Amino acid sequence: MIAQGLVDDIVARALREDAPWGDLTAAAFLPEPSTATADLVAREAGVFSGGDAFRAAFALTDPAIRVFEVAAEGTPFQPGDVLARVAGPARSVLQAERVGINLAQRLSGVATLTARFVAAVAGTGVRIADTRKTTPGLRVLERAAVRAGGGANHRFSLSDAVMVKDNHLAVLTASGASLTEALRAGISRLPHTAHVVVEVDGLGQIEPVLAAGVDTILLDNFSLPDLRAGVRQVAGRAQVEASGGVTLRRVAEIAATGVDVISVGALTHSATAIDLGLDVRVA
Amino acid sequence: MIAQGLVDDIVARALREDAPWGDLTAAAFLPEPSTATADLVAREAGVFSGGDAFRAAFALTDPAIRVFEVAAEGTPFQPGDVLARVAGPARSVLQAERVGINLAQRLSGVATLTARFVAAVAGTGVRIADTRKTTPGLRVLERAAVRAGGGANHRFSLSDAVMVKDNHLAVLTASGASLTEALRAGISRLPHTAHVVVEVDGLGQIEPVLAAGVDTILLDNFSLPDLRAGVRQVAGRAQVEASGGVTLRRVAEIAATGVDVISVGALTHSATAIDLGLDVRVA
Amino acid sequence: MIAQGLVDDIVARALREDAPWGDLTAAAFLPEPSTATADLVAREAGVFSGGDAFRAAFALTDPAIRVFEVAAEGTPFQPGDVLARVAGPARSVLQAERVGINLAQRLSGVATLTARFVAAVAGTGVRIADTRKTTPGLRVLERAAVRAGGGANHRFSLSDAVMVKDNHLAVLTASGASLTEALRAGISRLPHTAHVVVEVDGLGQIEPVLAAGVDTILLDNFSLPDLRAGVRQVAGRAQVEASGGVTLRRVAEIAATGVDVISVGALTHSATAIDLGLDVRVA
Amino acid sequence: MIAQGLVDDIVARALREDAPWGDLTAAAFLPEPSTATADLVAREAGVFSGGDAFRAAFALTDPAIRVFEVAAEGTPFQPGDVLARVAGPARSVLQAERVGINLAQRLSGVATLTARFVAAVAGTGVRIADTRKTTPGLRVLERAAVRAGGGANHRFSLSDAVMVKDNHLAVLTASGASLTEALRAGISRLPHTAHVVVEVDGLGQIEPVLAAGVDTILLDNFSLPDLRAGVRQVAGRAQVEASGGVTLRRVAEIAATGVDVISVGALTHSATAIDLGLDVRVA
Amino acid sequence: MIAQGLVDDIVARALREDAPWGDLTAAAFLPEPSTATADLVAREAGVFSGGDAFRAAFALTDPAIRVFEVAAEGTPFQPGDVLARVAGPARSVLQAERVGINLAQRLSGVATLTARFVAAVAGTGVRIADTRKTTPGLRVLERAAVRAGGGANHRFSLSDAVMVKDNHLAVLTASGASLTEALRAGISRLPHTAHVVVEVDGLGQIEPVLAAGVDTILLDNFSLPDLRAGVRQVAGRAQVEASGGVTLRRVAEIAATGVDVISVGALTHSATAIDLGLDVRVA
Amino acid sequence: MIAQGLVDDIVARALREDAPWGDLTAAAFLPEPSTATADLVAREAGVFSGGDAFRAAFALTDPAIRVFEVAAEGTPFQPGDVLARVAGPARSVLQAERVGINLAQRLSGVATLTARFVAAVAGTGVRIADTRKTTPGLRVLERAAVRAGGGANHRFSLSDAVMVKDNHLAVLTASGASLTEALRAGISRLPHTAHVVVEVDGLGQIEPVLAAGVDTILLDNFSLPDLRAGVRQVAGRAQVEASGGVTLRRVAEIAATGVDVISVGALTHSATAIDLGLDVRVA
Repeated sequence: MIAQGLVDDIVARALREDAPWGDLTAAAFLPEPSTATADLVAREAGVFSGGDAFRAAFALTDPAIRVFEVAAEGTPFQPGDVLARVAGPARSVLQAERVGINLAQRLSGVATLTARFVAAVAGTGVRIADTRKTTPGLRVLERAAVRAGGGANHRFSLSDAVMVKDNHLAVLTASGASLTEALRAGISRLPHTAHVVVEVDGLGQIEPVLAAGVDTILLDNFSLPDLRAGVRQVAGRAQVEASGGVTLRRVAEIAATGVDVISVGALTHSATAIDLGLDVRVA
Repeated sequence: MIAQGLVDDIVARALREDAPWGDLTAAAFLPEPSTATADLVAREAGVFSGGDAFRAAFALTDPAIRVFEVAAEGTPFQPGDVLARVAGPARSVLQAERVGINLAQRLSGVATLTARFVAAVAGTGVRIADTRKTTPGLRVLERAAVRAGGGANHRFSLSDAVMVKDNHLAVLTASGASLTEALRAGISRLPHTAHVVVEVDGLGQIEPVLAAGVDTILLDNFSLPDLRAGVRQVAGRAQVEASGGVTLRRVAEIAATGVDVISVGALTHSATAIDLGLDVRVA
Repeated sequence: MIAQGLVDDIVARALREDAPWGDLTAAAFLPEPSTATADLVAREAGVFSGGDAFRAAFALTDPAIRVFEVAAEGTPFQPGDVLARVAGPARSVLQAERVGINLAQRLSGVATLTARFVAAVAGTGVRIADTRKTTPGLRVLERAAVRAGGGANHRFSLSDAVMVKDNHLAVLTASGASLTEALRAGISRLPHTAHVVVEVDGLGQIEPVLAAGVDTILLDNFSLPDLRAGVRQVAGRAQVEASGGVTLRRVAEIAATGVDVISVGALTHSATAIDLGLDVRVA
Repeated sequence: MIAQGLVDDIVARALREDAPWGDLTAAAFLPEPSTATADLVAREAGVFSGGDAFRAAFALTDPAIRVFEVAAEGTPFQPGDVLARVAGPARSVLQAERVGINLAQRLSGVATLTARFVAAVAGTGVRIADTRKTTPGLRVLERAAVRAGGGANHRFSLSDAVMVKDNHLAVLTASGASLTEALRAGISRLPHTAHVVVEVDGLGQIEPVLAAGVDTILLDNFSLPDLRAGVRQVAGRAQVEASGGVTLRRVAEIAATGVDVISVGALTHSATAIDLGLDVRVA
Repeated sequence: MIAQGLVDDIVARALREDAPWGDLTAAAFLPEPSTATADLVAREAGVFSGGDAFRAAFALTDPAIRVFEVAAEGTPFQPGDVLARVAGPARSVLQAERVGINLAQRLSGVATLTARFVAAVAGTGVRIADTRKTTPGLRVLERAAVRAGGGANHRFSLSDAVMVKDNHLAVLTASGASLTEALRAGISRLPHTAHVVVEVDGLGQIEPVLAAGVDTILLDNFSLPDLRAGVRQVAGRAQVEASGGVTLRRVAEIAATGVDVISVGALTHSATAIDLGLDVRVA
Repeated sequence: MIAQGLVDDIVARALREDAPWGDLTAAAFLPEPSTATADLVAREAGVFSGGDAFRAAFALTDPAIRVFEVAAEGTPFQPGDVLARVAGPARSVLQAERVGINLAQRLSGVATLTARFVAAVAGTGVRIADTRKTTPGLRVLERAAVRAGGGANHRFSLSDAVMVKDNHLAVLTASGASLTEALRAGISRLPHTAHVVVEVDGLGQIEPVLAAGVDTILLDNFSLPDLRAGVRQVAGRAQVEASGGVTLRRVAEIAATGVDVISVGALTHSATAIDLGLDVRVA
């Protein structure tokens, strides 16, 4: 559901960054008429994402290149699996190679890490959600990669949902207003379609926050016992989200506390590239 | 030496991505006149990069924000160290916070990982160089982060130096030409200012490549004994670069073989974000 | 809370549209050193919006122009009131005049019309909200104008809240699923921060929609009795929004039915420009 | 004759404004393979404009959508008439719907209002012309809509024809030069291809302006008797344009005075959207 | 009268073209704190243009650079004359140098060539005008350079005045219409503010063209006797423009025929750069 | 090897510059259904370049235009030769004509002048190389034109190779360091793939420069005897480039001195447009 225009915009910038005035090597060392076919091959196991971006890297370099048999978003793969095929003028294929791979291996890295978190909570019904800790300029693609890995998206930006954090709360209550009153005042100034998440740092804040009528309560950096207590206290009156220091080792325990959503910055800020290579055959 | 225009262009895109039409939360929950000061604080140890981008995130959101005491590129830091200070309208500071941190922690991640590689080869005189495996759209910043970490930059793009790889060699010699002749023909078609790197897969290719008159010979995925043999064989007739599977554990051994440069894709494709936080005080 | 960058982007395009290579008249007929002061004067009564855009029209034409005493967003005015003052090089002031006025009078038109709707429901606690029927390219400014007129914003775009309409419902239930099941399935695929509005065409749809757990139920084109019945039936289990054929004459009656929000496409698609003029004094 | 690139640029911005990262509703509630056909149907009578923009809204969202049987610019229509047909993937059709309609109904509003003014002066040979009071960013489309309604275009921008107004005249004659001399001096500094319009506020200015050799004399806010006197006085030595407070009620009387052109800001600044709807059938 | 935004846009593109990721040489060979002053010095005689663009090249590279004592547009200069001074960080000054000079010497080349043509017709009252044969992307600057050289501008683009050429006439009369009728029909479809130039290839076309009521008649590639005859025939009923094969040697003779305007493509398509240098003193 | 995206970007800007809102003349004077065929014909002899840009001028104006039989880059031509053919809607063909010709004749001018320099040194093995003295915004096209004329490209920008000039040397040695030491220090800070050119002003600088290990030594403004002496002194230890005051008359003598490369700013800064015309046949 990402508009192709958004993908093309990102990829065109990457191509210009990588070849502002052409590929010196290809121009000098490859005869113009030679053609190439190439396979995008996994060098390690993972979950695929980035097919649209990979395809665009070649299409925008040279419309004469065909990209086909591209694996679907979310496809799990093993070392040696072919994830896409490319055919076209050798010069163009080699020129686009690096940008195509950079995108696919970064996005597959996000999908793969997400899938590990999702697998760790399998059967609990808990959602693994991303955060705004994405690579600047690539959010729309990294969000799709999270979905490819089985994760869920959080709010996309500051403009589409509300998250009231400790800094906001400090100001809200500085004037002497109660937490509940202050939240209500703020909520009354929001569009009626704004989903409201409020981040709390301790159990004591839960009741006054709920009293203001919020949609999601975010328990930030809670211990496991406190998470359990928090879930009991909320008792379905809002969604419960947990965040803070979520690792692959700890995520199942957090899920077992009964929260609805676990948001994990690491999905995007700590994913590393999956090793993918392009096996080129030049004719 | 990066033009501010290039930094601003990247940061402006990130800001628009993160707040296409403003910060709903800040607008509703923070009184317009409140002001904030904030410290960028390290939550773990590392090497700093991204000061210009961090500053731009705030300046482009609201010229009324001041950013000061920004740590110099390459500054090593410990948990708790303050890396920059920010002061201005609370709404704007909170709106810019995430983008500023996302950039600084990603770039500091690259600088920190680079510094580890550089430290591992300290005293050998060997350079640790980056590759084109950078985050699409962020190359200019990630290259600066590599320099901040004490590393060296490789060619920036396909347009500024030549790297002849196995795929090119396969075509060059397919017509029956010798490797040396084929390389010479290609080199004759290059600008006279083009630095030529040729990648070889085995010791047997070294002599014919050197005979063509290249600037750097890249020994790709060589064993340690073969690297040593390669260095001896080249004997100063070209720079020797090693690449392929370079890890923090192996890099010192590779450096000890006598190569001049070790290029490491991981510097950029596998760096993870360093944990930085913004401690905000709203008044 | 609109980033100045967004305003500048819109205004810079308008300026380029209106003077792609300068103002022929000013260049030929005004001596270079002459200066001008000017007042933005209301020719009819209204509510002001567009101060930032008005200011940008002059600032982006020539940084030597000062714009001051700009009326605050939402200021009501009478014929003859001065809404802003301008001073600077005469050539530049006259070149920017039309774009500045076009923006201010259009946005004040939206604010003024909104204020009329808001006044018509005064005392009821009902919100008057805008829609996505905005002028292409100007949404961010027109939304601010609605707020200036005392109105509320609806979702900004397709990306920030969910509105399920008849077309979606038709597909959802085509496969034989019940409305409730179908809605639940869709909602389960949404980010947990997505606010869900469902549009219904008749009273019979209300219960199954509420059973799926939605945030807002939109009663589209309901008669006044049906609106009243709908409000009773929802009974606080969701927000109730009314839309469809809302006019100044009818809006008070609709508000009296007890709905929470009335969304009015006319605020933006049928607002006409308020007559504002620039009284220039050239020296 | 508008380059498709200009239309696409406007429409692409509108699409991005309305769906910066996709359509949440369609993605969650519509199965990927479902297709839709849709008719653009008039809900009230009018004159059509905006076919190219409507088509682009769908084409730029998804090239798989076909738009066909688009009514020609200037087609008069009645309630119920089908003005265009659309077919393609349901998700994409629903995503593009609002932008396509917003453009078509706004531009048809301009064409319709223009056609009313043109009809009011039918048989007189007088031209109804637009002004620069257009929606910022949409001038090229609104100008085409004026033509679709049978109107004529005035100068497009400050860069393509000259209009000397009271403010310019005040400066020109401040130094003691006669009006005729001052105009001649200014005209001598213009490109020889610049058409010169001079705005006058009273009958007394007509002779000195004509003596300077202008192409069009604009009688601004003249009474009907003064317009008649002005036309007699000009006596074919220049084109005569009337402007100021032109309403549908008054325009025929103004036309009867013998002027050549009547310019009407309301064509663009006070046109409201014509009610058009998209009747979608999803399969 | 060129908006600074237009100049900046051209210069920013040139800077990015010339240093997509900084100046390798300056970064490595110049210590960061060193500063430089520099004089823009003429190496040959000419007429200056391009001061704004020259200034922007430095200002956009580094706001810390000051550019001062910039010669006014149209200043005649001799070898050795200083045309502008620059002071600032040495790295930035050297980075911006080439772009600043490239622009100034090209534009001064246009101004200088124009001044030669203008001098050749001095005293005749004939205008030397440019054409649309400008460097793609630089028209707005080259037009200003023509004015700096004492020349006049022709229509800027296809959108701001009308020029009917042989190709148009061939179509117009193909249907059997007389030339006069065909022109009148076309003119009736134009905005009333459109200046109409008609190009004729022989004396016989003059009367029918004048009968249609045109503003300028363009005698293309006429011999000197035919130009004289043409001027007599037009007898003040339209402006007379000559074009085609106008050289510095022939231009005075053409001017002597009595035409009003001579348009000269060479002003922009055959101007060569004036030799300017930047004498840098680094401290 | 230039990405089509780069060409299209330049051409789209030129088209918008030349017709910001359409072609007034074509719209009014050409019936919509008329079609045209046209030949791009040489009016003087030369060497062709700019085929891609010429084609793009028409394709981006109207995809319905076909451009075919475009001469290959570097094709020599005589007056009367047809260099490309065009067919399509008459209005669009005439609208695109000027931009297409402007680009082709300017680029063919560069190719032709280059070919003259190349011919003048034929048989010597010396390369004729361009410089950074290109038209701002057109470098990528002008570089291709130089290649079309048989010339070689120098470094593209400040970012892709190093050229140390007198200004840098002055600073380098100001601190008392020897020239050799200073150069070595600078070179150690460069990427290992940076080609280093050092410009020298006298024979005495050659040895210390060579001692630092540079790739190319540039003898700037040397007399012929000094060039010969310089070549002998370098003796193959680096490439030798000559520059400064290179004219068609002197270039053969310079080539005879034994230098490897002669760089000639005139190729791009003093090339004038080759006369090309479009012979249009409208049907």
